[in-house]
This record gives sequence, structure tokens and C-alpha cells, in this order.
Amino acid sequence: MNTDFPFQKIEHARITPGMSADELINAMSGCGLGAGRIADAVDTYEAMVDDGATKFFGLSGAMVPAGMRQIVSDMIRNGYIDVLVTTGANLVHDLIESLGGHHYKGSEKADDIKLRDRQINRIFDVFLPEEHFTVMEEHMLAVLEKMDRKFTIREFTAEIGKSIEDPNSILRSAVDCDVPIFCPAISDSIIGLNAWLYKQTQNLSVDVFDDLSDIIDICYNARKTGVIILGGGVPKNFILQSMLVSMKGGFDYFIQITTDRPDSGGLSGATPDEAKSWTKVKEEAKAVTVYADATIALPLMMAALRERLE
Amino acid sequence: MNTDFPFQKIEHARITPGMSADELINAMSGCGLGAGRIADAVDTYEAMVDDGATKFFGLSGAMVPAGMRQIVSDMIRNGYIDVLVTTGANLVHDLIESLGGHHYKGSEKADDIKLRDRQINRIFDVFLPEEHFTVMEEHMLAVLEKMDRKFTIREFTAEIGKSIEDPNSILRSAVDCDVPIFCPAISDSIIGLNAWLYKQTQNLSVDVFDDLSDIIDICYNARKTGVIILGGGVPKNFILQSMLVSMKGGFDYFIQITTDRPDSGGLSGATPDEAKSWTKVKEEAKAVTVYADATIALPLMMAALRERLE
Amino acid sequence: MNTDFPFQKIEHARITPGMSADELINAMSGCGLGAGRIADAVDTYEAMVDDGATKFFGLSGAMVPAGMRQIVSDMIRNGYIDVLVTTGANLVHDLIESLGGHHYKGSEKADDIKLRDRQINRIFDVFLPEEHFTVMEEHMLAVLEKMDRKFTIREFTAEIGKSIEDPNSILRSAVDCDVPIFCPAISDSIIGLNAWLYKQTQNLSVDVFDDLSDIIDICYNARKTGVIILGGGVPKNFILQSMLVSMKGGFDYFIQITTDRPDSGGLSGATPDEAKSWTKVKEEAKAVTVYADATIALPLMMAALRERLE
Amino acid sequence: MNTDFPFQKIEHARITPGMSADELINAMSGCGLGAGRIADAVDTYEAMVDDGATKFFGLSGAMVPAGMRQIVSDMIRNGYIDVLVTTGANLVHDLIESLGGHHYKGSEKADDIKLRDRQINRIFDVFLPEEHFTVMEEHMLAVLEKMDRKFTIREFTAEIGKSIEDPNSILRSAVDCDVPIFCPAISDSIIGLNAWLYKQTQNLSVDVFDDLSDIIDICYNARKTGVIILGGGVPKNFILQSMLVSMKGGFDYFIQITTDRPDSGGLSGATPDEAKSWTKVKEEAKAVTVYADATIALPLMMAALRERLE
Repeated sequence: MNTDFPFQKIEHARITPGMSADELINAMSGCGLGAGRIADAVDTYEAMVDDGATKFFGLSGAMVPAGMRQIVSDMIRNGYIDVLVTTGANLVHDLIESLGGHHYKGSEKADDIKLRDRQINRIFDVFLPEEHFTVMEEHMLAVLEKMDRKFTIREFTAEIGKSIEDPNSILRSAVDCDVPIFCPAISDSIIGLNAWLYKQTQNLSVDVFDDLSDIIDICYNARKTGVIILGGGVPKNFILQSMLVSMKGGFDYFIQITTDRPDSGGLSGATPDEAKSWTKVKEEAKAVTVYADATIALPLMMAALRERLE
Repeated sequence: MNTDFPFQKIEHARITPGMSADELINAMSGCGLGAGRIADAVDTYEAMVDDGATKFFGLSGAMVPAGMRQIVSDMIRNGYIDVLVTTGANLVHDLIESLGGHHYKGSEKADDIKLRDRQINRIFDVFLPEEHFTVMEEHMLAVLEKMDRKFTIREFTAEIGKSIEDPNSILRSAVDCDVPIFCPAISDSIIGLNAWLYKQTQNLSVDVFDDLSDIIDICYNARKTGVIILGGGVPKNFILQSMLVSMKGGFDYFIQITTDRPDSGGLSGATPDEAKSWTKVKEEAKAVTVYADATIALPLMMAALRERLE
Repeated sequence: MNTDFPFQKIEHARITPGMSADELINAMSGCGLGAGRIADAVDTYEAMVDDGATKFFGLSGAMVPAGMRQIVSDMIRNGYIDVLVTTGANLVHDLIESLGGHHYKGSEKADDIKLRDRQINRIFDVFLPEEHFTVMEEHMLAVLEKMDRKFTIREFTAEIGKSIEDPNSILRSAVDCDVPIFCPAISDSIIGLNAWLYKQTQNLSVDVFDDLSDIIDICYNARKTGVIILGGGVPKNFILQSMLVSMKGGFDYFIQITTDRPDSGGLSGATPDEAKSWTKVKEEAKAVTVYADATIALPLMMAALRERLE
Repeated sequence: MNTDFPFQKIEHARITPGMSADELINAMSGCGLGAGRIADAVDTYEAMVDDGATKFFGLSGAMVPAGMRQIVSDMIRNGYIDVLVTTGANLVHDLIESLGGHHYKGSEKADDIKLRDRQINRIFDVFLPEEHFTVMEEHMLAVLEKMDRKFTIREFTAEIGKSIEDPNSILRSAVDCDVPIFCPAISDSIIGLNAWLYKQTQNLSVDVFDDLSDIIDICYNARKTGVIILGGGVPKNFILQSMLVSMKGGFDYFIQITTDRPDSGGLSGATPDEAKSWTKVKEEAKAVTVYADATIALPLMMAALRERLE
């Protein structure tokens, strides 16, 4: 046998009953394919934290409806997220829960016409009663009534956060921890529709471009930078383009969890290597893509990471 | 054999050398799986046109870099698109080509560090020289200098369109044909960065919410409505939420071409049935999802549709 | 503009009403992503034919139920397939249609319990009445009764083909054109179950390994070789391993149409480059992967190819 | 708020540093999408074991190369698998490791021509030196020399298992625990090629259909039945068709972990509901599909399950 074969052997994962999440990740770390990658992602996140990097978190997809709200708000409160870029939908669903509403476990095979007739909205196997949007709209109008000046979207999301008492809220946690929430496509959400409705009769001014200063400044001023992307979409590009403009040569750490593949050409599935051609990710960056449903990968990664670091 | 079996037989597709695109689609129309669905999509588009429906087109993904620019601008000029909702990136790449720049066919296996060193940006197997962004930035600054008032994003994209001479441009075609272009996440693009840069020293005001009036009005005033979605993302949700707010009970026609699946919970892969629970699509709507790379499905569909209707 | 930029420009596809399938493929040939790849696949198939290569065709997935039977049998009769490797299921469904049975277009949202109660089997949106299996079993028993010697699987599939009169049958077309049909997992099908049932009381001997001689010989004796893979699975590996053993350094031409991606590690999504490391595909081979539903890609490719060559 | 809303609330997963794998799964059990499904899968597996069901395990994909060998062999030794149906490749890679060979962690971006020149075979990001096949071939020839009678494939795999000393081997563990290993497409593997080579000069007879008796008998005689499918392919269909023929109305428990989706029509992505139309799965079965890379899902599931049951 060629003894100087210059690669690391695959170490087959071994399960021990009662093992902790991090013991499990360690057992997977010698594996290839997804098992090896998720272990790499935990190592990369750990290195990012140890290095004091500014951690940009891109959150898209139906993460709050699916039950990831507590994990994300805890990540904010425990220092795993420094900048959050997300979709309007995740903020809407966070706000709904913050106001006492709930999402429900249903079946993706439900009859959608019956659901419609009962005023239940479906997100694959998650159900959301329409009435929650009414509660939310009332709350939003109250929030908006105090907003009598020009706002950036970041300031706008912070105002919503301040209006929330629930400590498990992502919006509230971000306010408490001085974590900015950027939401470039805020108009593309029920919150956006609420704001638009309010604007029909009242003054409110939110410029579409002004947030760029803030996020580019954060990027520019950071000593080291890392990005964690769940899903892709606008949050992914918005974070990466901020790096591009800040002219720092790219992120030092890059983790993405996605179900998209690169071959469709969409940014959500683009590899960190592709990002290197744009100088969005550094040549020597620690970078890993995990092809996985983020509702499986994120809990496992965070359980291992928090065990390791806390 | 049970002669009253109440389903249509699968008719196996038969190829005839020299057959036209529509003959091919007709040959596929008796098939199941993707073949049957793409034929359904052509029929649905035809019915949408015949019915005089207002046609909303959601364009995301790397469609312009991949070579779909001419097809989309021709669709605008030939009346297949009444309202375009797209990503900043597709507008950026359209503008680059409008100014004489080009995308190039490369390989997804290229060395991204070498590409970076040569200032070539990669989008899977499409290459884009960095220098094109410089040309574009100069053009954008000239456009912006004339923008001394408050704009909606729709007006902003129209201003860019007016500055373009190339008749093959999507932006120009839309101006010429009075097709509004909405781009809710315009800040999430190089055009957004150009605008932001300009704003550092000059006045420009683009409100993030004001476009909602326009698109909701179009939705509300339309007798019949149809939506064609390529990829998903913000354009898909933005179109569907406009229908939601207009309280018309949903789209009459729905076509989506996507590589995403519903199980991830993201909107890009959500089915038209799911949209029915939200009243975004009507119970009796003609609705079809084609699971396909849109760069394959769109040319085939448009070749068949235009043969059928022109 | 850098005039010596050493890549081919993206030529945006242009649709002309009434264009033929090959004109459409030519219009797509200047594009990136899937559009460019499917055009490359047609060119590769054309080169394979022009070069007189022996063409191995791997057919898996529900291609016959979906309506691809006529295309595949015409490919055999018109010289586009020299060796067919397939799954038992595709042969079963071909035989059912050859005996007057039919598949039907249904909906993937049908109630499967109601279908079961009506003895209708579902394959996504294709329905198959259970009674067809009874007709098939009777036919198979009649075929088997004449099989009183040792058979290879290739000989076994040929015997079934000889029993069929329908000229549109894949099995019959293969017999008529001396195209061998290999089906390594023949036991994994209703045909296999029929044969097993017959064997409970009668002699029949089909060795699992004996076909390897035949396919390896064909591989070894071919001057040039090409492979076209639809889906992947056992047919893909069986063809590629024959090349491996024949020690010829790999296929000269390689086309695969698949919805699987390489990252799962399964062979169905493995790239032609990976196959080069194994010497299953030559370094200088013309090789292309199209990520697509084969029921969309195959008809389009064959319409263009037959227009070009016939 | 409507208090009689008849659905279970989404309970957001909460991470506790140091939590065990089963505590993590329990935290995910109140979630939707993949998180909820993987928790359901663990519950389903637990119920299958508690109910004393006969557990059929379908193993396809590159599971052994990726590092899942120890988990599978431990599953056999600890009673989680009663019948194994797999691909030739997984047996080949198990045998290679049993004989002292190793797989290695590489990069999917490696230069495949350089790998070929160094005689290293690539499976996405796993590398395998060609020389291991030589060692394996010598071992196989020694095994084959003792096989002087007619064998079923199940007996054939057991003979290989008996020749192995390594207790971590899947093949050896199956022999030790009287777990039959079926491998319908055994000819589609290097083991098959070894057997074929041996057959050129020696007697060996392995009938392709004879295994059906064994697996159908096991199915028929089982009081309750469950199936766990990793990936799909031939193992999935072979298990399900055995149930079909045994006329028991379908499996009582059904778990599949797959990256394939139903819309392609291939069996690997087919839902348990589709299987109900065929009477392969019972109407009232506990059935769940987890859309995931099995190298991530299997370790997590088994860590939770073994913690729960041992």
C-alpha cells in the first residue's frame, strides 16, 4: 500500500448512544459528502467566532414558519450574528409570533380550497390563520404612527423591534443586542403592504438606497469578516455586494446552507469559488457549502457549535 | 379492457424530421411528466393571451447573462408581457449589453483565482469582464444627473430605459411599449450601488414603498390576470402579494418554470395550489408548474407560442 | 474594450415564429447554462453519429410511462442506438403497451387510496390500470414456455421482443434492428416476477453474470464509442464499467440528461470529469451534461438531430 | 384568537449547549419542513422496532465511500436491520475497507486527469486508489474458488461475508447476525466483474431470479413490516415489489431519505402515497420522506434512535 498517499483517510462515523450534538459532529468530521461538509461548517463557524470576525447572517426561506425563530433569536443574543440580512417574510412571521400568533403543523397534501375557505394560508406543511395578519396590521399601524421622519430600512426594522416585548423575537433580540437588521426587499412583504397602506394618508419616507451606507461601512470597518447564508436570495447578494464595494478583497469565512445547485446560474446556488472570481470571498478563505434543508442543518450545527463554545 | 376508463391516454410523442417548435410541443402534449407540463404551459400562455389577460412576468435568475435577453425583449415588443417584475441583476446585465458590453461562454470548471486576477467575473459557465461595470457606472452617473426629483422604482427603471438606444434592450423595449418594470430589490444590484454612490453627494429620492400603489392598481383594474414566473424569488412574491391586496380572488392563469421544489418551504418552489390557499391564484385558474431550467423551457415555449399566435 | 478577450460571446437566442426544432437549437447554441448545454448535446450526438461511433444508450426513469416510447423505438429503427441498457420497468411498460394496454394522464394530487380501490397504479401524474399486468403475465407465461435452455438476460429480452408484433415497441424494434437490450436488474421488475413465478414449476436458467461478456466485447471491438445516459441508475454504471474493463481508455463521446447533481455522491449525478478519473471517459472526449427532465430534453434534442441528419 | 384551531402549534426548536442527539431531535419535533420530518422519521423507526416489525433496509448511493460503513454495520449488529438490499458498489467499497484499503477525503474540484494519471478514482469529494481493486480481485478469486455449486445472490454475498474477518464490515456483520444481503444488480459492480472473469474458466452459476423466493418469503411471513430507504434505486423497488407480490397490502412503516423529488417520475423520488396506490404501503402506515443527504440525516437519526432505545 502506498504509504505516502497525501490525503486524509475517510474515518467512518461511529454512533454512541447518548452522544452529544458536538460528539456527533466530530464523528461525522472524518466523512465525505454532506457529513464532512456539515462538520466543516461547524469548524468554520467556530474559527469565525474565535477570530473575532464580524458575522453577517443571510436568512431567507420559510425559516420562521418552520420553527427556527428561537434558534435565530438565541444566535443573536449569544453573539453568533452581528449583522442580519433577511426577507420581509421572516420578519412578518416573527412579528406574528411576537404578538401571540402561531404557526401550525399541517400537511402539504391538504385541500387548499378548503384551507382557503377556512382562511388558513399554507406554506408547504405549515399553516397560518389569516386572522393573524389583522392583529399584525393593527400593531404595525400603531408603530407607524410614531414614525414621523425619514428612515432607513434598518431603522424601520429597529422601530418594529422596539415595539415588541417578546424576548424570543428575532426583531426584539436584534434591538437588544444592537444587531442591525437589513431587509432590502421590505416592500415585498405584508409589513411592506402595511407601510404602504399607512402612507396613503400619512407621511413616511424610507429610501431604498440609504441602507447601503450602513452595511458597506460595517463591512469596511471590520477587521475580519464572515458570512453565513441560509437559502440564498436577496440576503446573499446584498451581503456579498457590500463586500465587493468595500474593496477588502472578500470574506475571510463563508458558510452557506442551500438546496440550490450552481448549474441553474442563480446566485442562491452559486459556489464560494464563483464568489472568489468577483472578490466577494478571499482566495484563502475558509469556505464551505452544505447542500441541505436548513431546518435540519442549522439546529445540528448550532447545537454542536454552542456546545463547543459555551 | 375497461372501456369507460375516465382518463386521457398517454399519446407517445413522435418526432418528424423538420418539425416546427409548435409541432414538437403538440407531439409532447399527450405525454406525462415534464413533456406534458411544458405543453400545458404553452396552452395556458395561449389562453392567457386569447383571453386578453394582463400578463405579469416575474424574471429572476441569471437569464440575461445566459442569453435570454433577446427573447424577453421580443416578448415585450410582441405583447407577451404587460408588467415586468425582475431583479436588479437582470437589469444590470441588460444595461451592460445595451452599452456594447458582452457576456462570454466559459467553463464552470475555470480557475476562479486566475479569473479574478484577470478581472473576469464568473456566473456558472458565463464570464463577464469587470471593465463593463466601469462603462456602466459612467452611463448611470449621466442618467442620474438628470434625476432631480422623487422617483418610484418603476420610474427609475424607466429613466434608465430611456437612456438606452439599443432596441434589443429589455429596459428600452419596456419604455417603448409602456410596460412598467418593477424591481423591489433594486438596491441589491450594481445599479443600486451606482445610485447610492451618486446619492453621497447629490439629491435623489426613491421611496421603497411607493411602487406598491402602481402594481396593485394594475392588478385591481385588470379584467383578467395571468402570471408567468421564471425562477421565483422576490419577483414571484411581489406579483402574488399585489394580487392578494387587490382582493380579486387570485390570478386566472399561472405558469411557473422553476428548478426549486415545494418541500424546502421557500416561495420559489411553492405550488399554485399552495397559492390558492392564500387567494393568490383562483380555484378554477389554469395553472401549471414546469420543473426545468428556464433557459431550455422558455425558448421552446416561446417558439411554439409565437408560431401559434403570429 | 479588450478586443483579444479569448472567449466566445454569448449570442442571445432569437425566436422566429415557425422555426424548426433545429433552428431553435441553433438559436440556443450561443447561450450559457442549460440552453447552451442542450445545443452542445445535439452537436455531440451528431458528431457521434458522423464518426461512426458505437452508441450505448442508458435508459432509466419512467420514460415509457411518460410517453417517450415512440421516440426511443424510432431511435433504434433510425440508427441512433446500437446498444440499449435499461431498467426492467421500462421493458414492462413497453410490453404493456405492445399488448394493447395504455398509460393514462392523471394528476399527482389524486387520492391514492381511491386509486388503489379502483386498482389504478400511479407514477407521479401517469396512471396505469392494474389489469394490464394480468394481460402481461399471460403473455409472459406463453413466452417463457418456449424457453427451455440457458439464457443470458440479453437473449431473454430478445425472446420477449420476438413475441411482440407492435412495430412501435422498443423490445420489437431492438430485435428487428439487431440492437441488444441489456437489463442487469431484470429481476427487479414485474417481468422478473413473472419469470420467477414460472420458475417455481419449470426449468429456466438465466445467469446473472453472463451478459458481461457480450457488452464488454461490443465495447472492446468498437472503433469509436459514445454513450447517451437518460437518468442514470444501473444502466449508467453498467455501460461505464464495461468501458472500464475493456481497457480502451474511456468513451469518445458522452451525453447525460439528468436531474441529479454530483454533490450527493450517487453515480446518477456524477460528472463526465469524475468518469475521466476512472478512465471511463477519455480526456479529449466530447462530453456534456444537461440538467433537465429527459421528457423535455430528449424530444427537443431528437427533433433537432433528426432534422440535421435525415 | 380561535382557540379550537384543530392543528398542533409549531414549537420553535431551542438549542441547549451540550444537548444529546435525541434531545436535539425532540427539540426539532415541533417544527415543520425537514426538521419536523427527520423527527417523525426517528419516531417511525422507534415504532417499527417497538412493534417487532421486520425491517427492510434499502441502501444505495455512495454511502460506504462517504463514511457510513460503521453506522450500517452497527445497525445490523444492534438489530436495526433485518434484511439488507443494496447495490454492488456499496459491497465493493465495504470489501475494500475490510481488506485494509481506505477511501480518502479529497476535493470535488481536483483535476481528474491528474487523478487518472496517479490511478486515483474520484467519487465527488472521496478518492479511492485504483490499487485497492487489485487487492480485492485477488481476495475475490480466492473466495470464488470455493464456490463450486449453484448460488443465489444472497448466498453469494454471504460467502463474501464469511471470508472477511473485520467485524466492522457490513458483509461480515450480516453473516454474523443472519441478516440476508440481497443485491439484484450484483453484475453491475466490480464484484460482478470479478465473478465474470472467474467464470471465463471456471464453473459458477448464479441465477438472476432465484433470490425472489427468499425475499418474498421473508415479506410474506413477517407479522409486521417496515422499510427504510436511503437514496432509492434498485434496492427501493426490489423491496417494494416483494411486498406487492406477497399480497399483504403494503408495509406498515415506511421511511425514505432521498434527494430526489417525485416530479421526475423516477421511483427514487416517489412518495409513500404513490406507493399506496400500488398496495406497496398500507393506507394506515406510518410513512415519512426526509429530503436530505443521507450522510447528514442517517447519523443524526441513528444517534437519536439508539439513545432512545439502548
